[in-house]
Amino acid sequence: MKRIKISDLFASAKIGEEVLVKGWVRTFRSNRFIALNDGSTINNIQAVVDFEKEDESQLKRITTGSAISIVGEVVESQGKGQDIEIVVKSFDVIGDAHPDEYPLQPKKHSLEFLRENAHLRFRTNTFSAVSRIRHNMIFAVHKFFNDKGFYNVHTPIITGSDAEGAGEMFRVTTLDLNNVPKTDEGNIDTKQDFFGKEANLTVSGQLEAELAALALGQVYTFGPTFRAENSNTTRHLAEFWMIEPEVAFNDLNDNMDLAEEMLKYCVQYALDNCKEDLDFLSSRLIEEEKGKPQDQQSMELIEKLKMVVDNDFVRLTYTEAIDILRNCKPNKKGKFQYKIEGWGADLQSEHERYLVEKEFKKPVILTNYPANIKAFYMRQDDELPEAKPGMEVGTTVSAMDILFPGIGEIVGGSQREERLDVLKQKIADFNIPEDHVWWYLDTRKFGTVPHAGFGLGFERLMLFVTGMTNIRDVIPFPRTPKNAEF
Amino acid sequence: MKRIKISDLFASAKIGEEVLVKGWVRTFRSNRFIALNDGSTINNIQAVVDFEKEDESQLKRITTGSAISIVGEVVESQGKGQDIEIVVKSFDVIGDAHPDEYPLQPKKHSLEFLRENAHLRFRTNTFSAVSRIRHNMIFAVHKFFNDKGFYNVHTPIITGSDAEGAGEMFRVTTLDLNNVPKTDEGNIDTKQDFFGKEANLTVSGQLEAELAALALGQVYTFGPTFRAENSNTTRHLAEFWMIEPEVAFNDLNDNMDLAEEMLKYCVQYALDNCKEDLDFLSSRLIEEEKGKPQDQQSMELIEKLKMVVDNDFVRLTYTEAIDILRNCKPNKKGKFQYKIEGWGADLQSEHERYLVEKEFKKPVILTNYPANIKAFYMRQDDELPEAKPGMEVGTTVSAMDILFPGIGEIVGGSQREERLDVLKQKIADFNIPEDHVWWYLDTRKFGTVPHAGFGLGFERLMLFVTGMTNIRDVIPFPRTPKNAEF
Repeated sequence: MKRIKISDLFASAKIGEEVLVKGWVRTFRSNRFIALNDGSTINNIQAVVDFEKEDESQLKRITTGSAISIVGEVVESQGKGQDIEIVVKSFDVIGDAHPDEYPLQPKKHSLEFLRENAHLRFRTNTFSAVSRIRHNMIFAVHKFFNDKGFYNVHTPIITGSDAEGAGEMFRVTTLDLNNVPKTDEGNIDTKQDFFGKEANLTVSGQLEAELAALALGQVYTFGPTFRAENSNTTRHLAEFWMIEPEVAFNDLNDNMDLAEEMLKYCVQYALDNCKEDLDFLSSRLIEEEKGKPQDQQSMELIEKLKMVVDNDFVRLTYTEAIDILRNCKPNKKGKFQYKIEGWGADLQSEHERYLVEKEFKKPVILTNYPANIKAFYMRQDDELPEAKPGMEVGTTVSAMDILFPGIGEIVGGSQREERLDVLKQKIADFNIPEDHVWWYLDTRKFGTVPHAGFGLGFERLMLFVTGMTNIRDVIPFPRTPKNAEF
Repeated sequence: MKRIKISDLFASAKIGEEVLVKGWVRTFRSNRFIALNDGSTINNIQAVVDFEKEDESQLKRITTGSAISIVGEVVESQGKGQDIEIVVKSFDVIGDAHPDEYPLQPKKHSLEFLRENAHLRFRTNTFSAVSRIRHNMIFAVHKFFNDKGFYNVHTPIITGSDAEGAGEMFRVTTLDLNNVPKTDEGNIDTKQDFFGKEANLTVSGQLEAELAALALGQVYTFGPTFRAENSNTTRHLAEFWMIEPEVAFNDLNDNMDLAEEMLKYCVQYALDNCKEDLDFLSSRLIEEEKGKPQDQQSMELIEKLKMVVDNDFVRLTYTEAIDILRNCKPNKKGKFQYKIEGWGADLQSEHERYLVEKEFKKPVILTNYPANIKAFYMRQDDELPEAKPGMEVGTTVSAMDILFPGIGEIVGGSQREERLDVLKQKIADFNIPEDHVWWYLDTRKFGTVPHAGFGLGFERLMLFVTGMTNIRDVIPFPRTPKNAEF
């Protein structure tokens, strides 16, 4: 008999049908009720075994975590919550799980404990739900861009370029660290290294994606990026996945439209395709927040997702945002850790979240940031977004950040500086040697066009969609300071 | 007016319609015929400009590589090959490309030259076709697995594990190479490194994918993998992308079925979705092979792709293959570099290609290899695949390699060893300390089940589908010894 997946069983099995299911035992109650899961759905199938007919030594092997195969008849469920269950005709234990040794007993484990057992946490309800949603979000990203005629570009992971300046980099080397070869001048002899020069792990595929966009038109990256920053927070990973679209001929408005459309598409995709897993995570969250005071509770998960899909994102300039923040109660009452004194301040997470969660109660897109708090490749605004005292043309750039409730910045992007002379001045201002970015400058020298793009931290999206609060719980094997286990 | 992509123009524009197109000039002939490309298709739109009406200084700026925007009327084409062209009403030069400086002039450039200009080669017919096909193959892989209910798992890129043994690894570090900290014993003080221990770039996500499969059922990875091998060949990269499915409850036969189905799906997807690019690459190949003697010419590209889709792959055991090879003419006549003397020999590319290209003229799946030439995690066969003198149970494993014409091995996989005792013996035989793989062993300890998977080198698939012969020409920014430019 061919095995049927449990998801297919729930979707299409007929009462009276004989089926073969295989999976892992989640619980075995009263020597009679087996809850079996095979990963295809968060829902377990209940299999009812007649213990009087079975060999007791075999029944004893049905323990949490053990793998079994069951042949049985599909019947209407007697219990509540499920439509069908299986009456066991025969079963085989495929793999045992000794109850004294198996770490995942049927009780609530802390997320910390599960992180230490990342090799097994796929077997829990919470992390299997996150994993299925993660897959669906990966697929949604690819489908969104594919349907729009974008091309996925695999930008390099190991890079000899260090221009992006987005953060500290990991060095990649084959030199013998016990005996690093030196030049006559006493420097590291990078010529002897694998790539003949210093190489690092990429912090962003954007610059290379721009090269592709300025020929193929519409491209996106979706790959791992790295930051060697010693940040032990719930929001930082040393290794995380980024999505970076770049589009020739797009300006800042097109860029905002694309990002908003994409985020809504992904969230809608989750609502359409991950309902059971979202329902589970929603209940989990409600349970978790029960003790909290009302005003600290977050919005119900599915309601929050629908809020994103159903609302236009608020768009305002950085300058407008500063006005709001300067005059808001928390700022005046000294409730912010970093007080907003005026134009030019770099916004912190607390300010971003105030705008989204208190002021607008919707996703917000901030634009036209001060040039000196943004990257070199962002396009200098032609006109002043607003006339403010002290502002001159050239003080702002066509940047945009999208802020999400509970997350803060989820997308950062800009129109790119396409004018060779302006770009050359910017890289000089940023102390980037021209010979480090000759290839990037070439695209402005030959057939340059306006273009724009953005970066979306995939795990930030995952935090939002799953309602999880620690970024280590939305990636299978988190890499953080002092941790590269598995 | 909203810009129309050139692919949409060819697909749906109406005669007489006024359109706005933007793109890069491929050629400008007779001061009259502009061939414009925007990356959305390999086909250029011809735009006809009335030079007598236009400003000569502007016309001079229409050079190969320049970016222009054109408003014009769609008319039936006078020339051959294309249905429509545009009569230019007005045009703007967006970005110049000085003819004395722009590297990509309208002539045939060598692939070597284009590799050195990888930042610009997206603008050529050949590499843009490869890039579009690469995207389509990426999407096909995700769609294939998504439609079957698999989950994509992002296995770690930086790994503290070194068990796989698939090849030399790159070290990842934040230690100061000028002054590597040492312990009192004089060893590298890895505790001071970012991850608190030695970390490397992954050579394979398989072991971690198995962890996920043994809970979620059906998973696949699709990510970058790395080999620090000093191989300067047309078939090796230091950084390349791999697809690694793992499926719980699958045996070797299921594994072969899955791999064959997947390869056929991807190739069929290319035939269905990349026709114009494939036609171009096919003509390119025919052109390139014109000088060659008949018996050295490869099969026409599209014919070769159809051959894969239309035929069952030949399945035979390693032992059967050795019999064929030992008795074949090239072996007897000493034409192989490595003569096949008998059972136990590791097959080289020349042998694999003989089987595929001469003996069977179809893709071939070889199974049940000698255990000692395969990895530790492959399942020891229960029975002898054939009774041969000197063979005992335990001498072969449930491995499979898929061999493709022109490529050799494109897929390598196996049923995995799920029996804890056998696996423990294997890792002892392979000198892998148990505490390096405790997490892997745990999955055999708790609810172990038979399972199987394989690895597909994505660039090998790309070589096959595009007919390109150098692996550096099917990835945007190849990383090879002494080369990490861009």
